[in-house]
Amino acid sequence: MKILLVGYGAMNERVARLAEERGDHIAGIITKSDKIYPYPSFKIEEQWPEADVIIDFSHPELSLPVIRKQHDIPLVMATTGRKEEIIEALEGAAETKPVFFSANMSYGVHILTEIIKYSVPLLQNFDIELTEKHHRKKVDAPSGTLVKLYDAIKEKREAAYPVYDRTQTEQARSDEEIGINVVRGGTIVGEHEVLFAGHDETIQIIHRAQSKDIFASGSLDVAEQLVSKKQGYYTFDNL
Amino acid sequence: MKILLVGYGAMNERVARLAEERGDHIAGIITKSDKIYPYPSFKIEEQWPEADVIIDFSHPELSLPVIRKQHDIPLVMATTGRKEEIIEALEGAAETKPVFFSANMSYGVHILTEIIKYSVPLLQNFDIELTEKHHRKKVDAPSGTLVKLYDAIKEKREAAYPVYDRTQTEQARSDEEIGINVVRGGTIVGEHEVLFAGHDETIQIIHRAQSKDIFASGSLDVAEQLVSKKQGYYTFDNL
Amino acid sequence: MKILLVGYGAMNERVARLAEERGDHIAGIITKSDKIYPYPSFKIEEQWPEADVIIDFSHPELSLPVIRKQHDIPLVMATTGRKEEIIEALEGAAETKPVFFSANMSYGVHILTEIIKYSVPLLQNFDIELTEKHHRKKVDAPSGTLVKLYDAIKEKREAAYPVYDRTQTEQARSDEEIGINVVRGGTIVGEHEVLFAGHDETIQIIHRAQSKDIFASGSLDVAEQLVSKKQGYYTFDNL
Amino acid sequence: MKILLVGYGAMNERVARLAEERGDHIAGIITKSDKIYPYPSFKIEEQWPEADVIIDFSHPELSLPVIRKQHDIPLVMATTGRKEEIIEALEGAAETKPVFFSANMSYGVHILTEIIKYSVPLLQNFDIELTEKHHRKKVDAPSGTLVKLYDAIKEKREAAYPVYDRTQTEQARSDEEIGINVVRGGTIVGEHEVLFAGHDETIQIIHRAQSKDIFASGSLDVAEQLVSKKQGYYTFDNL
Repeated sequence: MKILLVGYGAMNERVARLAEERGDHIAGIITKSDKIYPYPSFKIEEQWPEADVIIDFSHPELSLPVIRKQHDIPLVMATTGRKEEIIEALEGAAETKPVFFSANMSYGVHILTEIIKYSVPLLQNFDIELTEKHHRKKVDAPSGTLVKLYDAIKEKREAAYPVYDRTQTEQARSDEEIGINVVRGGTIVGEHEVLFAGHDETIQIIHRAQSKDIFASGSLDVAEQLVSKKQGYYTFDNL
Repeated sequence: MKILLVGYGAMNERVARLAEERGDHIAGIITKSDKIYPYPSFKIEEQWPEADVIIDFSHPELSLPVIRKQHDIPLVMATTGRKEEIIEALEGAAETKPVFFSANMSYGVHILTEIIKYSVPLLQNFDIELTEKHHRKKVDAPSGTLVKLYDAIKEKREAAYPVYDRTQTEQARSDEEIGINVVRGGTIVGEHEVLFAGHDETIQIIHRAQSKDIFASGSLDVAEQLVSKKQGYYTFDNL
Repeated sequence: MKILLVGYGAMNERVARLAEERGDHIAGIITKSDKIYPYPSFKIEEQWPEADVIIDFSHPELSLPVIRKQHDIPLVMATTGRKEEIIEALEGAAETKPVFFSANMSYGVHILTEIIKYSVPLLQNFDIELTEKHHRKKVDAPSGTLVKLYDAIKEKREAAYPVYDRTQTEQARSDEEIGINVVRGGTIVGEHEVLFAGHDETIQIIHRAQSKDIFASGSLDVAEQLVSKKQGYYTFDNL
Repeated sequence: MKILLVGYGAMNERVARLAEERGDHIAGIITKSDKIYPYPSFKIEEQWPEADVIIDFSHPELSLPVIRKQHDIPLVMATTGRKEEIIEALEGAAETKPVFFSANMSYGVHILTEIIKYSVPLLQNFDIELTEKHHRKKVDAPSGTLVKLYDAIKEKREAAYPVYDRTQTEQARSDEEIGINVVRGGTIVGEHEVLFAGHDETIQIIHRAQSKDIFASGSLDVAEQLVSKKQGYYTFDNL
C-alpha cells in the first residue's frame, strides 16, 4: 500500500517503521509544520501525492480539515479528542470513500471485548473479577480499557456493580459484584484479565500488550482491509 | 429434584454429596450389586421409586438396560465407552423423554470449547499454541480435552497441523502449526491453555479444574435444565 | 509410621485418609467424646497405644492436656487459638521429645515465604505488588497468608507500605508502595501472587492451593521428619 | 556517567538511548568503521576521550583489542562468541581496573536463576517442569536461557533428566524427569516459567521480558555499580 500519514508524532513514526517492514510505502506526511521529515511533506491545501490510504494518529486541529477536504482516499482515523465533531465529519466523508474510526486501534483489545461479550451470557453462574496491570507512571485507574470491558459485561449482566476495595468490609461476595483490581509497577505496557470463577473451575481470559506498536500495527491491518471496501463508515464492528 | 443414580462409584458418590448440599434428594440407586448402600437400591427389573431425573456415571452394561427400560424419567447420561450403542439407545429413548449425553460433564470445558470456536475466526493472524497440565500419574498425552480443543480449532482453521516437539528441528514456526505442550506434575487436576500470539499482543484463555466435582456438579446443572424440557435428544449444543 | 490423631474433625479425617494412602497406619484417636470412630479411640487419661508420632488438628481444650501429659511421642501441633499458652506448653514438652508447631501446615506456603524473603533484597529496583484469590464465601480480606507475605517483604524493605485502592487517587506509584489486590470468586481454595515489576521485565511468583489436603499432607511430611529428630522445639525454620 | 560504547549496533543504540533518558552521557563510540555516527567516534589506536565506563555489545574482533589496550576505564563486556579468549583477556585486564562479564545482561534472568537455585533444594518432593515462550521466528529450541535454568536445577537435583515429548509414550512421570516445553508465536520477546508441582499445591516462577531493552538496561545498571569497585574480575555472582 502507498500510505499518507497525517502528522508525524511518536505513533506515526511507529506506523512508518512497521509499514516499511511490511513492504508498504510511505507516500508522504500531511502536516501544518515546516519541519524537515524523513518523507515528503504536504500542507492540507496542497496537492497530495497519490496514495491508497490515509492513516491519522494526530490531533483534531489537523484531522478535521483532512477529513473535510475533497478527496477519495480511504481514511483510517485514530485521533482522540473532540470525538463528536470527528465522527460527524467522518459521516460526511463516508459518502464518497470508506472511513474507519476507533479510539483504540489494538485489534486484540477489540477482540477481547467481543470474546467477553460472547462469554458472559454463557457463564451466568460464574463470578466475574477484573484485573489490569500497567506501568508505574500511569496515574488514572482503572484503565480506559478495563472500563470498556466492564461496560461490555454490564450490558450482559445488568445487575452488575463494581467493588474496588474489599479490605474495608467483612462480607461475602455477592453474585452481582465485579471486583476491580489495579496493579501498577515497572514498565508494564498493559495487561487485562477477566476471571470467571465457578464451582471448582475457573476460566481466565488475558490480553497482554507488549508495546505501543499494537496500535500502529492495528491501524495498518485496518488499512489493508479498508482499501478494498466501498464507501461508508466503518468501525471494528462492521469492518 | 428427586434423583435416581445409576451405579454408586466415585463419581456418583460425589453427585450424591453435592446434590444434598444443594438441597436435592437422592431417591435411590439403580444397581446390579447386592452391596449395602447409603440409599435404597433397586435392580433394573424392579419398580423404581418416583424421581425427577436419572443421573448415570456408570458403565455400558448397566447404562444400556437403564436406557432401554420403559419409563419416562429424564435421563442424564455421562457413561463413557461403547459410545455408538449408547447414542443409538438414547435416540430411541428420546422419543418418550428428554435425554442428555456428553462424555465430559464439565460445563466450563464445554464453554471453553465454545469460546475457542468463536475466537479462532476472529484471530486469523494470531499463532495458536495449546498447553495442558495434569497430575504426574496421567499416562496418556495429550489429554482428551486438549484433543477436543484442537479439533474445535481445526474446524475453523483447516490447514492447521499439530507440532509436538520443537527441540529436534531448527526451523521457524509456520502459520498453520499448532504447538502442543504437555506438562505433568504433582496432583494437578487439569489445566488447559489456548494462547493466541500476534504482533506485540497475546490473548490467553485458560480453564483450570480444581476437583473432579466439576463433572458431578455439571451433571446436576444439566439435570436441572433437562427436567423442564420436552422429550428429545440433548447435548450441550442444544440444551 | 504409626500415627495417633488428636480429635477427628474434617482436617484429621483428611490426615487419616492421606496417611493410609501413603502406607502409614492410624493407631488411634485421642478424644474427649464417646462417639464411635473408624479407629480405636482413647481418652487423655487412658493408656495410649504405641505410636511413632501424634498429629493434632483439634482445639486448645484438647491439645493442651495432650501436650502436658507425660509421654515421649513426637508431636506435630497444628491447632490454632490460645497460641501463647500452646507455645509455652510445647516448650515444656520439648524437653523430653521433639515437638513441631505451625499455624499453617502447608509446606508450599512456607517455602513461598522463604523464596520471597530471599528475592526481595535481590530485586531492589523492582516494584512489588501482591494479589490473593479466594472463594466467594471468604469474608476477611486480605488473607492471613497475604499478610504473612507482606510482613516478610516489609522485613526486607522497611519503607514499604500497603495501598488497597488506587481508583480514588490520581497519582503515580511510589517506590515503596505495595499494592494489595483481593479477588473473590467461585470456590478458589487459595492463590497468592507476588509480582516484581522492573524495567521491561517482571518476575511473578505464584502459589496455588488445590485443596485443604495440603495442610493434612504438610502435617504428614513434617511428622516423617520429626520422628528422627532429638527432643526440642521445631518450626519450619529449623526442621 | 560518561560512557564509551564499543561498536554501535542495535544493542548499543538501545544503550545510548536509555543512557540519555537516565541522564548519562555518551562520550563516544569505539569502532573500526569510518561511518558517521551520532556521537564522536574513535579508532582503537587513537586517544579515547575521558570516560567513567566502557560498555561493549560488539563482537570479539573489536572487543579483544579493546580489552587488551592499556587503559584503566572500568569495562562492561556483553559480547558473545570466543568466550574463552575473552575471559582470558579480561582476567589480564582485571589487574588494573574492574571488569564485568556476562553473556546475558538481563538482571532479571540472573536473579531468576538465583531464585531457582535457592528453591530447588527446598522443594525436593515437587516435580519440576520448564516452559519457554518466544516469537515465531526463533529457530533454536529450547532457548539458551531455559538451558541455563535447567543446568541450575541439575546442579541441585543431580538425577534430573529432560523430557521433550510426552505424546510418544504412555508412561507416568518419574520423579527425576523435567518436562521441557517450547511455545512459539507472534512476537513474544521471551517468557520462562519454572513450575514446581506438589501434592495439591504448585509454585510457579515466571520471568517475562518485554523488550530487548532489558539487556541494555542491565548493562547500565552493572556499569553504575562497577565504577565504584576496585580492580578485579566481576560477574553477577560477585558484583
